Amino acid sequence: MDLIIKNGTIVTSTETYKGDIAVKDGKIEAIGNCLQEEGVNVIDAKGKLVLPGAVDVHTHLAMPFGGTVSADSYLSGTRAAACGGVTTVFDYPVQRKGNSILGLINEKKAVCEEEACVDYAFHCCITDLNEGAILEEMEKAVEEGITSYKCFFVYKKEGMMVDDGTFTKLLKRVKELGAVLNVHAENPDLIDLNVENFLKEGKTSPWYHYLSRPEYVEAEGDKRAVHWAKHLDAPLYIVHMANKEGLEAAVEAKREGYNIYVETCPQYLEFTSEVYKREDGRNFVCSPPMKGQESQNALWKAIENGDIDTVATDHCPFQSYEKDWGKDDFSKIPNGCAGVENLYPYMLSAANEGKISFNKAVELCSTNPAKIFGCVSKGSLTVGKDADIVIYDPTKEFTISVDNMHSEYDHTIWEGISLKGYPQMTISRGEVVYKDGEFVGKPGWGQFVKRVANQ
Amino acid sequence: MDLIIKNGTIVTSTETYKGDIAVKDGKIEAIGNCLQEEGVNVIDAKGKLVLPGAVDVHTHLAMPFGGTVSADSYLSGTRAAACGGVTTVFDYPVQRKGNSILGLINEKKAVCEEEACVDYAFHCCITDLNEGAILEEMEKAVEEGITSYKCFFVYKKEGMMVDDGTFTKLLKRVKELGAVLNVHAENPDLIDLNVENFLKEGKTSPWYHYLSRPEYVEAEGDKRAVHWAKHLDAPLYIVHMANKEGLEAAVEAKREGYNIYVETCPQYLEFTSEVYKREDGRNFVCSPPMKGQESQNALWKAIENGDIDTVATDHCPFQSYEKDWGKDDFSKIPNGCAGVENLYPYMLSAANEGKISFNKAVELCSTNPAKIFGCVSKGSLTVGKDADIVIYDPTKEFTISVDNMHSEYDHTIWEGISLKGYPQMTISRGEVVYKDGEFVGKPGWGQFVKRVANQ
Amino acid sequence: MDLIIKNGTIVTSTETYKGDIAVKDGKIEAIGNCLQEEGVNVIDAKGKLVLPGAVDVHTHLAMPFGGTVSADSYLSGTRAAACGGVTTVFDYPVQRKGNSILGLINEKKAVCEEEACVDYAFHCCITDLNEGAILEEMEKAVEEGITSYKCFFVYKKEGMMVDDGTFTKLLKRVKELGAVLNVHAENPDLIDLNVENFLKEGKTSPWYHYLSRPEYVEAEGDKRAVHWAKHLDAPLYIVHMANKEGLEAAVEAKREGYNIYVETCPQYLEFTSEVYKREDGRNFVCSPPMKGQESQNALWKAIENGDIDTVATDHCPFQSYEKDWGKDDFSKIPNGCAGVENLYPYMLSAANEGKISFNKAVELCSTNPAKIFGCVSKGSLTVGKDADIVIYDPTKEFTISVDNMHSEYDHTIWEGISLKGYPQMTISRGEVVYKDGEFVGKPGWGQFVKRVANQ
Amino acid sequence: MDLIIKNGTIVTSTETYKGDIAVKDGKIEAIGNCLQEEGVNVIDAKGKLVLPGAVDVHTHLAMPFGGTVSADSYLSGTRAAACGGVTTVFDYPVQRKGNSILGLINEKKAVCEEEACVDYAFHCCITDLNEGAILEEMEKAVEEGITSYKCFFVYKKEGMMVDDGTFTKLLKRVKELGAVLNVHAENPDLIDLNVENFLKEGKTSPWYHYLSRPEYVEAEGDKRAVHWAKHLDAPLYIVHMANKEGLEAAVEAKREGYNIYVETCPQYLEFTSEVYKREDGRNFVCSPPMKGQESQNALWKAIENGDIDTVATDHCPFQSYEKDWGKDDFSKIPNGCAGVENLYPYMLSAANEGKISFNKAVELCSTNPAKIFGCVSKGSLTVGKDADIVIYDPTKEFTISVDNMHSEYDHTIWEGISLKGYPQMTISRGEVVYKDGEFVGKPGWGQFVKRVANQ
Repeated sequence: MDLIIKNGTIVTSTETYKGDIAVKDGKIEAIGNCLQEEGVNVIDAKGKLVLPGAVDVHTHLAMPFGGTVSADSYLSGTRAAACGGVTTVFDYPVQRKGNSILGLINEKKAVCEEEACVDYAFHCCITDLNEGAILEEMEKAVEEGITSYKCFFVYKKEGMMVDDGTFTKLLKRVKELGAVLNVHAENPDLIDLNVENFLKEGKTSPWYHYLSRPEYVEAEGDKRAVHWAKHLDAPLYIVHMANKEGLEAAVEAKREGYNIYVETCPQYLEFTSEVYKREDGRNFVCSPPMKGQESQNALWKAIENGDIDTVATDHCPFQSYEKDWGKDDFSKIPNGCAGVENLYPYMLSAANEGKISFNKAVELCSTNPAKIFGCVSKGSLTVGKDADIVIYDPTKEFTISVDNMHSEYDHTIWEGISLKGYPQMTISRGEVVYKDGEFVGKPGWGQFVKRVANQ
Repeated sequence: MDLIIKNGTIVTSTETYKGDIAVKDGKIEAIGNCLQEEGVNVIDAKGKLVLPGAVDVHTHLAMPFGGTVSADSYLSGTRAAACGGVTTVFDYPVQRKGNSILGLINEKKAVCEEEACVDYAFHCCITDLNEGAILEEMEKAVEEGITSYKCFFVYKKEGMMVDDGTFTKLLKRVKELGAVLNVHAENPDLIDLNVENFLKEGKTSPWYHYLSRPEYVEAEGDKRAVHWAKHLDAPLYIVHMANKEGLEAAVEAKREGYNIYVETCPQYLEFTSEVYKREDGRNFVCSPPMKGQESQNALWKAIENGDIDTVATDHCPFQSYEKDWGKDDFSKIPNGCAGVENLYPYMLSAANEGKISFNKAVELCSTNPAKIFGCVSKGSLTVGKDADIVIYDPTKEFTISVDNMHSEYDHTIWEGISLKGYPQMTISRGEVVYKDGEFVGKPGWGQFVKRVANQ
Repeated sequence: MDLIIKNGTIVTSTETYKGDIAVKDGKIEAIGNCLQEEGVNVIDAKGKLVLPGAVDVHTHLAMPFGGTVSADSYLSGTRAAACGGVTTVFDYPVQRKGNSILGLINEKKAVCEEEACVDYAFHCCITDLNEGAILEEMEKAVEEGITSYKCFFVYKKEGMMVDDGTFTKLLKRVKELGAVLNVHAENPDLIDLNVENFLKEGKTSPWYHYLSRPEYVEAEGDKRAVHWAKHLDAPLYIVHMANKEGLEAAVEAKREGYNIYVETCPQYLEFTSEVYKREDGRNFVCSPPMKGQESQNALWKAIENGDIDTVATDHCPFQSYEKDWGKDDFSKIPNGCAGVENLYPYMLSAANEGKISFNKAVELCSTNPAKIFGCVSKGSLTVGKDADIVIYDPTKEFTISVDNMHSEYDHTIWEGISLKGYPQMTISRGEVVYKDGEFVGKPGWGQFVKRVANQ
Repeated sequence: MDLIIKNGTIVTSTETYKGDIAVKDGKIEAIGNCLQEEGVNVIDAKGKLVLPGAVDVHTHLAMPFGGTVSADSYLSGTRAAACGGVTTVFDYPVQRKGNSILGLINEKKAVCEEEACVDYAFHCCITDLNEGAILEEMEKAVEEGITSYKCFFVYKKEGMMVDDGTFTKLLKRVKELGAVLNVHAENPDLIDLNVENFLKEGKTSPWYHYLSRPEYVEAEGDKRAVHWAKHLDAPLYIVHMANKEGLEAAVEAKREGYNIYVETCPQYLEFTSEVYKREDGRNFVCSPPMKGQESQNALWKAIENGDIDTVATDHCPFQSYEKDWGKDDFSKIPNGCAGVENLYPYMLSAANEGKISFNKAVELCSTNPAKIFGCVSKGSLTVGKDADIVIYDPTKEFTISVDNMHSEYDHTIWEGISLKGYPQMTISRGEVVYKDGEFVGKPGWGQFVKRVANQ
């Protein structure tokens, strides 16, 4: 044995019990009572919860977008992840039109080999089928562990949008390959129409960012995506669900037995569209925008009922000066907010306050994302899995501030939010990478997670 | 009095009773028992049903389409209408991109003044908002009695398709003006994708016309149209509904109280997609295509439950030689079939055979279309309305053939279909225009129906 | 001709138009423009609406109940009806256990021959099948024009309740006979349980009448009744629907095509359970009690959507001294309120204020009840029907008071309610029976309405 | 350590992985790789699955019913359980009217102390509230570990039926106490009516047992039970669900977040109502009866979708001579069939054949029943839980016959059914009680499971 975590309360997605965990060669070797061996490193977790590390399946690191690049590099982003109990980070590289996807993935891997502080995986965003060549290439990509892809229904001008024809081709293809298709679902025509109208009318505050993409504009995208997935019986994963009506359509299809997965984000669970009326409303601009209270209630209810599968962050921070570009025109605000370091603390605090169970928090942030996306050695405290472990202090009080975060951004929408309980330690494959507020890992430690396709 | 129809059984959308009808100046002057006046023309309708003339709200006359022009002129089309008991015909002029709509309507009116054998009205198909100018012009058009408009979700290459932005602008505008927006709802991307794939694979028979636009491809369009209409609370009329899933979405919204209207056509009630396997399958090519038995059953059930509002024909015949263009490639077959002369006889025969009530047939083919589209003097046998009257012989056996039709086309999909009962006489504003198999009216008799907007 | 009503605006369930009505031998002889004949009685209805007389299909006259008898005799009840524009009244005689139903009907007919001021019909309440003899007798009763029956799910102690076995036997039987089964649907066990508990706890005010029969207690009965009717495919008419959940279950079955009919009453449309907190709350005690605002909204919405078929009154008044029996114990208050004279004025006032159309008011109060219950000569202003006509002054202001009613009771829950518009005249089979606030008919004028079974 | 199970594949409700299990003092002490200790008993599970023992929450042992007593004593019933991999058996003692429940439980405990071969627990069937005394007594009973109760909607003549008043009182009470209410849901009136009619008509074969309790008769009970549970927000567990419509109502309520649990039984998953047409149809008579294919499909679909919570057996065998009492009258056949020994083998065989996953089989037969009913030390292979373990040989072929069962009955409905895979060994709290087809435990080994109420 290399390490024993003793006396803690182990929490999995289904159970809570006392037990010690022994680690060997970066993997969980045994779970039991009174495990001990001489000369082994021992961590005493008495009074603490021992959880599987979180798997944040939605981040955008060093991403060119909105005329700039998102503020977190692969280094700072994965460092922040480690400090928030996230032991696996998924990034979303975006295919450059006409280009190959394996090339793109290899570029990203090369950067991460140097920079990643925790393990990482890639979904690949498809913007162009290259007359079918991409559909061919996907077979190889899946073999190399890229088992999920993404389409945007929006970002027409940015050249990222796909039409229903491309979308359905991809749905059929991921089904054949045992992969999953992710979708950013909003309606592009309505957004363009609304933005154009508002700007014409001189309505330029962040509130009009919300009004140009309100509930029913997001819902249309969800309903259409679900329609195609259902009729092709293909696996669909809807990212950052933020509205009630679209959620209901997805849930209805799930319940008929279709492979529809739903992700939401902490920002939609904590904030409503009211934030866009704030002085600093532009900092909250992301797409889809936060929605009304009714939608937020529906999201929490769906979490309770098991209808939401995952919570991830859509981490995509921009610096204040960049957000300021849209001071007089909401359409110029780079879309995106920070989040990767707040995911697990936020959801665990919700558990600690009794809103959900700790098991549910683990299921949403770790077990389900690992399962859905084929990370077979992640997501659970089970003998044989990677020793990705978070030790959580349920008694610690913590107030989020840009000052106690470990990212590169200069502000956060989470500023001032108080949490009950906080991670004390993060262990990545048996190594402590975060402890008592400090990052103690090192860039390059993180490894590529080669994922496994569904049969 | 000018005319008295005596001894018949009057059938309205809600009642069936014995009574005489007196006509004066082209209008119904009185309904009663034993009406008589000396020197008045008397028609004895003993043993006959006396019905309001049908209002076929969906025809395409002299329409440039598919590289040719639909086979019926305004003369022959309205002559056929008269001979089928249709006393008001709606045509669908299509805006030429960049052009005005009032100009178009006036052109059409000029032709009809010479040619129309029964009364006529126009929906106007919008293909281009001309940077908003059309939205302005619509106000004047509504004042002039053009109270309904139409969008195509399909026919992208033909330049007729509108995107969701244009569609929603039009929805908002018709709502403001007390008008109605009609929609041809299928998904253009999927059709293009399917056609391209089938042709690539050498699948060129008419069966692939159906498979390129199957149930779920139509359903997507319906669901999207309903989504926008519901959220804008705007009046939407879905033309030629042919599939179950889209129908269900429309009905669900209707039942929540939205102004969603549903039209189907006799061809969807009589034929299924099996016709595309026939030798002469190309003659049945229209869009949307006939669907499977499950959809047809759903249409009949919806008629029974009051969920379908109107039955109209989508009359758009092409000659055999034109249909033959697609002998080796279904995508080259001009889309459309004959129907205006068969509408009322078909639905009344269904009533005569007990499938629906005669009241229901009247409601679907006359009363509802007149109401929905603001034809305030049409659609009912009521004192003060236009004396548009059909005398129907429920005992007559009739087999449809191109030989006994009064149109210009050289074949019909209805060839050989037997009906129980048939119109004996059609009266248009008090004048007999059809009698015992012969057209006895005259071109130019028909008048423009200036319709009234909803409050 | 005996009578011509000139210059009015005729309102039917589907149309509104100018026209004169000529009456001969108590029936409508003709409808037309400028009808006239010398020496005929002429009523000028200029500026007035001309409507078919209402058909109140739910009254309890001279009914033994709650230890007394309901306050209106057949004379005073039908007199009040005439003065409220009701030209056909349905009474609910209750079978005495072990006794025949034809005997009962004949008793009632004999009384009505002397007393009835307008036409009358009987539903028959079944309390005991007499080992099947009643099922036999029903065939003869249907032939004699008794084509509807009623069951109570409640009133166990009163000996009126039937169990599910008896209920389903009756459903099967009415189906065979072309009749309809009415049901008073609430759950008896829960009511007994609640009443017992409340009285034990000293909760004796009328508010506890409501709480002992709240929404979900009524809903259970509705859902159960619908369940059996649906599975036996038998015609069911639910009387006095007052709650949202039960309504939804009924509507869902209607929309699947089952013959489920729903009645509500003006009191559920006007008052909510809040009235039971009033000083005079006991006067509002009826069963089912008024419900919460959400249920009331659902009832109005269902009227708008066409999901409620009829509005009737459940007229069953008691005198103040009788209501006072329950001053200290809600369970001792005789259940029932006045209403027959308020039905049509209330619903027409709602139309006059724009809440519904006048056509809808006519449909709910006259056309539909006549159709559902086989009154083939009632419910419509059509040539050949009985000349049951109401002339309505839409400009008259009227405030309901026990002083301007024509019944025998000494108070009314409608006291002080203001209406916009009021009936000026009621004509029963061509005879004026009410005019300008005065009853001008005579007892014994009313005739038994021999109803016709469905095929 | 006392025992190590090595080299097996551990299957829990959520995971499947290689690992060894060490047992000490009847509990799971550790799970890990390569666990060993000298002098410890080692079982080699190479090539085998290692599962938590099943928890059959529905049996009737030595139960007086139908004029006799069910064929299995507590000894033979729990012996059969052990041999089928069931390590905890729930029995359903039925309160004798007017009597206490704790007295009853103590009687049963005394018998089980002598006889039980595996651990046991009791739900208590309530037939009479003894004027409220039982509601009082339930508090003490819950403290003593009886945290679930049951009501029958049927068996009126047998004195076991409760009305809706009693049922709702119990729902409220279990909610207060953190207990659960089980219900046998069918409609008693319809059953009585149907049986009476069929016998009168000379329809006496077992097919009429089915026809007297068809789908919609069961569905009514389910819907009513769900209605009350929903409106009281009380925990309800529906036993032996066998029909689609009732299932759908339960699932709808579950999905709204109510605590509704659904159990089905292997016999409903394997057989349809067609068995009642067999020569030996009477042997299959149980209540509710097997239903049609559509219902069976719905049950499997609900298992797949996670809408069914548990599978249990309703084990209640009778001897052939007793079943023969109903040879000429289906109403005289004692209701009930054997099953406890077939539960786990049947469901695991379904998994082995790919119909469900092994995890799902474990969830349905062990994890969920243990959780729902408060067996905190059962239902899972987790450190600290009781070492109730089944070693399963997925390669063994097994054909069920009364000859290879370990019960007292002389026939079984499962005769001749072939299974793929079979339990090789059953371990109860660390002791092997079944091995290679032989019972090797001893009566009296089983302990009472003191259950824990929900908070």
